[in-house]
Amino acid sequence: MSHTVHEKKKLLARVRRIRGQVEAIERALEEESGCETVMHRIAGVRGAVNGLMNEVLEDHVRTHLVDAGGESGAADAREQLIDVLRSYIK
Amino acid sequence: MSHTVHEKKKLLARVRRIRGQVEAIERALEEESGCETVMHRIAGVRGAVNGLMNEVLEDHVRTHLVDAGGESGAADAREQLIDVLRSYIK
Amino acid sequence: MSHTVHEKKKLLARVRRIRGQVEAIERALEEESGCETVMHRIAGVRGAVNGLMNEVLEDHVRTHLVDAGGESGAADAREQLIDVLRSYIK
Amino acid sequence: MSHTVHEKKKLLARVRRIRGQVEAIERALEEESGCETVMHRIAGVRGAVNGLMNEVLEDHVRTHLVDAGGESGAADAREQLIDVLRSYIK
Repeated sequence: MSHTVHEKKKLLARVRRIRGQVEAIERALEEESGCETVMHRIAGVRGAVNGLMNEVLEDHVRTHLVDAGGESGAADAREQLIDVLRSYIK
Repeated sequence: MSHTVHEKKKLLARVRRIRGQVEAIERALEEESGCETVMHRIAGVRGAVNGLMNEVLEDHVRTHLVDAGGESGAADAREQLIDVLRSYIK
Repeated sequence: MSHTVHEKKKLLARVRRIRGQVEAIERALEEESGCETVMHRIAGVRGAVNGLMNEVLEDHVRTHLVDAGGESGAADAREQLIDVLRSYIK
Repeated sequence: MSHTVHEKKKLLARVRRIRGQVEAIERALEEESGCETVMHRIAGVRGAVNGLMNEVLEDHVRTHLVDAGGESGAADAREQLIDVLRSYIK
């Protein structure tokens, strides 16, 4: 079973918190709050998204990158990880 | 007038698009899509948030960092910018 | 006078420290230290480079983004800043 | 054998190129080139360091995160990877 299924509850809580933070940027724009508020909220979302990515990568490494004596799938999981890291670290 | 007021429409459209992307991560978790989908969607949100930050910083620099013969406020705007960059680039 | 001239000493000290850190990666590779050492040193260089960029951006904003009653150059400095941020935040 | 040993030549070439780029920042400061040159060179080093990190992470994942029927070490390699990602993605 995939870690994103196993850790569904924990990850959904994190994603919903991020949605709330994005909505707070929306509100700051609608209520014409100062640009400083807007910039700080954007920085907050970036931090939260990086935290979520770390969480998912960590689960991915701990769950799928274990061969367990020949389980296929580990090779695919490695390539997926490399692919995500390439798009994330640039 | 602050650039986040002047550019309200454009920025709100961007933020709502990001909200939609965050909701798509939520859906992927709820529907138990594979972790690869989840990771790619998180990477997509990170890119979109960086794009939004660039947009706002660019407007900030073009709007507030112009002294216009002694307008106060530019000094504050410079310090706000430095503060945001310090929290963003690390 | 440009801030990179005014702050030359301080910035050169930082850059030389970074050069030392890069040489330490080189040594770790030559002496065949473990990959963990190599990865941690690379992460250290990234942090130091971000610190240097923040320092230079901060000086740039404080020095050039001040119009001082019509000094030309501030407009160019703003566009340079925007250009650097676009290439850095992505 | 560690991938940083196996890929030593390729990685050393990359690190030396980065050292050259750092020395070019040093030269720009010493010769009092404009700050724009300095900022662009710093951005270049950051990109090159990220490229190196990707290269090493990729080798790490492909080499060590393969259990090969009970080889110990894979568990350690996973934790090292998680540790590096946590310090890198923030």
